[in-house]
Amino acid sequence: MTAKNIKIHLPYGKVSAIGPGKADLLEAIAESGSISAAARQMGMSYKRAWDLVDTMNKSFREPLVHTATGGSHGGGAQMTEFGHEVLRCYREIELKSYQAVETELRTLTGLLAPRQ
Amino acid sequence: MTAKNIKIHLPYGKVSAIGPGKADLLEAIAESGSISAAARQMGMSYKRAWDLVDTMNKSFREPLVHTATGGSHGGGAQMTEFGHEVLRCYREIELKSYQAVETELRTLTGLLAPRQ
Repeated sequence: MTAKNIKIHLPYGKVSAIGPGKADLLEAIAESGSISAAARQMGMSYKRAWDLVDTMNKSFREPLVHTATGGSHGGGAQMTEFGHEVLRCYREIELKSYQAVETELRTLTGLLAPRQ
Repeated sequence: MTAKNIKIHLPYGKVSAIGPGKADLLEAIAESGSISAAARQMGMSYKRAWDLVDTMNKSFREPLVHTATGGSHGGGAQMTEFGHEVLRCYREIELKSYQAVETELRTLTGLLAPRQ
Protein backbone atom coordinates (compact mmCIF):
# COMPACT_ATOMS: atom_id res chain seq x y z
CA MET A 1 0.00 0.00 0.00
CA THR A 2 1.19 3.49 -0.82
CA ALA A 3 -0.35 6.95 -1.02
CA LYS A 4 -0.93 6.10 -4.70
CA ASN A 5 -3.79 3.80 -3.69
CA ILE A 6 -5.77 6.86 -2.73
CA LYS A 7 -6.84 8.89 -5.72
CA ILE A 8 -8.02 12.43 -5.06
CA HIS A 9 -10.13 14.15 -7.70
CA LEU A 10 -11.17 17.77 -7.64
CA PRO A 11 -14.31 18.07 -9.73
CA TYR A 12 -14.95 21.16 -11.83
CA GLY A 13 -18.27 20.77 -13.59
CA LYS A 14 -18.02 17.59 -15.62
CA VAL A 15 -14.23 17.48 -15.65
CA SER A 16 -11.61 16.82 -13.02
CA ALA A 17 -9.62 20.02 -12.39
CA ILE A 18 -6.76 17.97 -10.98
CA GLY A 19 -6.28 14.28 -10.22
CA PRO A 20 -3.43 11.77 -10.00
CA GLY A 21 -2.61 11.83 -13.74
CA LYS A 22 -2.72 15.61 -14.07
CA ALA A 23 -0.58 16.03 -10.94
CA ASP A 24 2.05 13.66 -12.33
CA LEU A 25 1.96 15.54 -15.63
CA LEU A 26 2.49 18.87 -13.83
CA GLU A 27 5.49 17.40 -12.07
CA ALA A 28 6.95 16.14 -15.34
CA ILE A 29 6.45 19.57 -16.93
CA ALA A 30 8.10 21.27 -13.94
CA GLU A 31 11.11 18.97 -14.33
CA SER A 32 11.45 19.06 -18.10
CA GLY A 33 10.15 22.54 -18.90
CA SER A 34 8.36 21.05 -21.88
CA ILE A 35 4.92 19.58 -22.53
CA SER A 36 6.21 17.28 -25.26
CA ALA A 37 9.02 15.90 -23.06
CA ALA A 38 6.55 15.44 -20.20
CA ALA A 39 4.11 13.67 -22.53
CA ARG A 40 6.84 11.29 -23.71
CA GLN A 41 7.83 10.57 -20.14
CA MET A 42 4.20 9.80 -19.23
CA GLY A 43 3.68 7.66 -22.35
CA MET A 44 0.88 9.86 -23.68
CA SER A 45 0.47 11.83 -26.89
CA TYR A 46 1.42 15.49 -27.07
CA LYS A 47 -2.21 16.34 -27.85
CA ARG A 48 -3.45 14.46 -24.77
CA ALA A 49 -0.93 16.23 -22.54
CA TRP A 50 -1.80 19.59 -24.04
CA ASP A 51 -5.54 18.94 -23.49
CA LEU A 52 -4.92 18.04 -19.84
CA VAL A 53 -2.89 21.23 -19.31
CA ASP A 54 -5.63 23.21 -21.04
CA THR A 55 -8.28 21.68 -18.74
CA MET A 56 -6.22 22.55 -15.66
CA ASN A 57 -5.52 26.10 -16.84
CA LYS A 58 -9.22 26.69 -17.52
CA SER A 59 -10.44 25.06 -14.30
CA PHE A 60 -8.37 27.15 -11.91
CA ARG A 61 -8.46 30.90 -11.30
CA GLU A 62 -5.02 31.32 -12.83
CA PRO A 63 -2.94 29.27 -15.26
CA LEU A 64 -0.85 26.50 -13.74
CA VAL A 65 1.37 26.27 -16.80
CA HIS A 66 2.54 29.04 -19.12
CA THR A 67 3.07 27.83 -22.65
CA ALA A 68 5.26 29.70 -25.07
CA THR A 69 4.52 29.53 -28.77
CA GLY A 70 7.05 28.66 -31.46
CA GLY A 71 8.05 25.46 -33.21
CA SER A 72 5.69 22.65 -34.14
CA HIS A 73 5.26 21.56 -30.53
CA GLY A 74 5.43 24.96 -28.92
CA GLY A 75 8.43 26.67 -27.39
CA GLY A 76 8.55 25.15 -23.94
CA ALA A 77 6.27 25.31 -20.94
CA GLN A 78 6.77 26.73 -17.49
CA MET A 79 4.93 26.02 -14.28
CA THR A 80 3.66 29.21 -12.70
CA GLU A 81 4.05 30.02 -9.00
CA PHE A 82 0.32 29.32 -8.75
CA GLY A 83 0.82 25.93 -10.41
CA HIS A 84 3.51 25.02 -7.89
CA GLU A 85 1.16 26.01 -5.07
CA VAL A 86 -1.70 23.89 -6.43
CA LEU A 87 0.60 20.88 -6.91
CA ARG A 88 2.06 21.25 -3.39
CA CYS A 89 -1.43 21.48 -1.92
CA TYR A 90 -2.60 18.43 -3.92
CA ARG A 91 0.39 16.31 -2.80
CA GLU A 92 -0.22 17.30 0.82
CA ILE A 93 -3.83 16.17 0.55
CA GLU A 94 -2.77 12.83 -0.97
CA LEU A 95 -0.26 12.21 1.80
CA LYS A 96 -2.46 13.37 4.67
CA SER A 97 -5.48 11.32 3.59
CA TYR A 98 -3.27 8.27 3.23
CA GLN A 99 -1.64 8.71 6.62
CA ALA A 100 -5.09 9.06 8.22
CA VAL A 101 -6.11 5.55 7.14
CA GLU A 102 -2.80 3.72 6.83
CA THR A 103 -3.62 1.40 9.75
CA GLU A 104 -7.10 0.57 8.45
CA LEU A 105 -5.69 -0.06 4.97
CA ARG A 106 -3.22 -2.52 6.46
CA THR A 107 -6.08 -4.28 8.26
CA LEU A 108 -8.05 -4.54 5.03
CA THR A 109 -4.97 -5.73 3.16
CA GLY A 110 -4.63 -8.45 5.80
CA LEU A 111 -7.98 -9.85 4.65
CA LEU A 112 -6.68 -10.50 1.13
CA ALA A 113 -6.01 -14.06 0.02
CA PRO A 114 -2.39 -15.22 0.11
CA ARG A 115 -0.82 -14.68 -3.33
CA GLN A 116 0.05 -17.83 -5.24
CA MET B 1 -16.75 18.01 -2.45
CA THR B 2 -17.87 14.72 -0.96
CA ALA B 3 -16.15 11.54 0.23
CA LYS B 4 -16.75 10.30 -3.34
CA ASN B 5 -13.93 12.54 -4.56
CA ILE B 6 -11.51 10.27 -2.78
CA LYS B 7 -11.20 6.91 -4.46
CA ILE B 8 -9.57 4.15 -2.44
CA HIS B 9 -8.20 1.14 -4.30
CA LEU B 10 -6.88 -2.01 -2.68
CA PRO B 11 -4.47 -3.60 -5.13
CA TYR B 12 -4.23 -7.38 -5.41
CA GLY B 13 -1.63 -8.26 -7.99
CA LYS B 14 -2.73 -6.58 -11.20
CA VAL B 15 -6.36 -6.16 -10.17
CA SER B 16 -8.14 -4.01 -7.62
CA ALA B 17 -9.58 -6.25 -4.88
CA ILE B 18 -12.05 -3.53 -3.97
CA GLY B 19 -12.59 0.05 -5.13
CA PRO B 20 -15.45 2.54 -5.43
CA GLY B 21 -17.31 0.62 -8.16
CA LYS B 22 -17.01 -2.77 -6.50
CA ALA B 23 -18.09 -1.33 -3.13
CA ASP B 24 -21.20 0.19 -4.72
CA LEU B 25 -21.92 -3.12 -6.43
CA LEU B 26 -21.63 -4.97 -3.11
CA GLU B 27 -24.09 -2.56 -1.57
CA ALA B 28 -26.53 -3.05 -4.43
CA ILE B 29 -26.24 -6.84 -4.08
CA ALA B 30 -26.81 -6.59 -0.32
CA GLU B 31 -29.97 -4.58 -0.95
CA SER B 32 -31.40 -6.58 -3.83
CA GLY B 33 -30.10 -10.08 -3.06
CA SER B 34 -29.39 -10.51 -6.76
CA ILE B 35 -26.42 -9.87 -9.03
CA SER B 36 -28.63 -9.21 -12.05
CA ALA B 37 -30.78 -6.66 -10.18
CA ALA B 38 -27.64 -5.00 -8.83
CA ALA B 39 -26.14 -4.90 -12.33
CA ARG B 40 -29.30 -3.24 -13.72
CA GLN B 41 -29.25 -0.69 -10.92
CA MET B 42 -25.59 0.12 -11.63
CA GLY B 43 -26.15 0.28 -15.41
CA MET B 44 -23.72 -2.52 -16.17
CA SER B 45 -24.10 -5.90 -17.86
CA TYR B 46 -24.77 -9.03 -15.83
CA LYS B 47 -21.46 -10.45 -17.07
CA ARG B 48 -19.53 -7.39 -15.92
CA ALA B 49 -21.13 -7.52 -12.48
CA TRP B 50 -20.47 -11.25 -12.21
CA ASP B 51 -16.81 -10.73 -13.18
CA LEU B 52 -16.40 -8.02 -10.54
CA VAL B 53 -17.91 -10.28 -7.87
CA ASP B 54 -15.64 -13.10 -9.03
CA THR B 55 -12.58 -10.84 -8.74
CA MET B 56 -13.56 -9.82 -5.21
CA ASN B 57 -14.28 -13.38 -4.13
CA LYS B 58 -10.91 -14.55 -5.44
CA SER B 59 -8.93 -11.60 -4.06
CA PHE B 60 -10.03 -11.97 -0.45
CA ARG B 61 -9.45 -14.86 1.94
CA GLU B 62 -13.16 -15.71 1.95
CA PRO B 63 -16.02 -15.05 -0.47
CA LEU B 64 -17.79 -11.72 -0.06
CA VAL B 65 -20.83 -12.90 -1.98
CA HIS B 66 -22.38 -16.35 -2.10
CA THR B 67 -24.02 -17.12 -5.40
CA ALA B 68 -26.66 -19.79 -5.77
CA THR B 69 -27.03 -21.60 -9.07
CA GLY B 70 -30.29 -22.01 -10.96
CA GLY B 71 -32.04 -20.09 -13.74
CA SER B 72 -30.29 -18.36 -16.62
CA HIS B 73 -28.90 -15.62 -14.41
CA GLY B 74 -28.33 -17.65 -11.28
CA GLY B 75 -30.58 -18.09 -8.30
CA GLY B 76 -29.83 -15.04 -6.24
CA ALA B 77 -26.78 -13.83 -4.41
CA GLN B 78 -26.12 -13.21 -0.75
CA MET B 79 -23.50 -11.09 0.94
CA THR B 80 -21.55 -13.10 3.50
CA GLU B 81 -20.77 -11.85 7.00
CA PHE B 82 -17.20 -11.44 5.76
CA GLY B 83 -18.47 -9.38 2.81
CA HIS B 84 -20.35 -7.06 5.15
CA GLU B 85 -17.21 -6.66 7.26
CA VAL B 86 -15.06 -5.78 4.22
CA LEU B 87 -17.62 -3.28 2.97
CA ARG B 88 -17.95 -1.67 6.41
CA CYS B 89 -14.17 -1.38 6.69
CA TYR B 90 -13.91 0.09 3.17
CA ARG B 91 -16.60 2.72 3.84
CA GLU B 92 -14.89 3.71 7.09
CA ILE B 93 -11.61 4.22 5.23
CA GLU B 94 -13.36 6.37 2.59
CA LEU B 95 -14.98 8.53 5.25
CA LYS B 96 -11.95 8.84 7.52
CA SER B 97 -9.56 9.76 4.70
CA TYR B 98 -12.02 12.39 3.49
CA GLN B 99 -12.53 13.89 6.92
CA ALA B 100 -8.75 14.14 7.36
CA VAL B 101 -8.40 16.48 4.38
CA GLU B 102 -11.79 18.17 4.16
CA THR B 103 -10.34 21.57 5.09
CA GLU B 104 -7.48 21.30 2.59
CA LEU B 105 -9.89 20.17 -0.14
CA ARG B 106 -12.01 23.25 0.53
CA THR B 107 -8.92 25.44 0.23
CA LEU B 108 -8.00 23.82 -3.10
CA THR B 109 -11.61 24.12 -4.29
CA GLY B 110 -11.40 27.83 -3.47
CA LEU B 111 -8.66 28.16 -6.10
CA LEU B 112 -10.98 27.00 -8.90
CA ALA B 113 -12.24 29.51 -11.43
CA PRO B 114 -15.78 30.84 -10.89
CA ARG B 115 -18.22 28.73 -12.91
CA GLN B 116 -19.88 30.49 -15.82
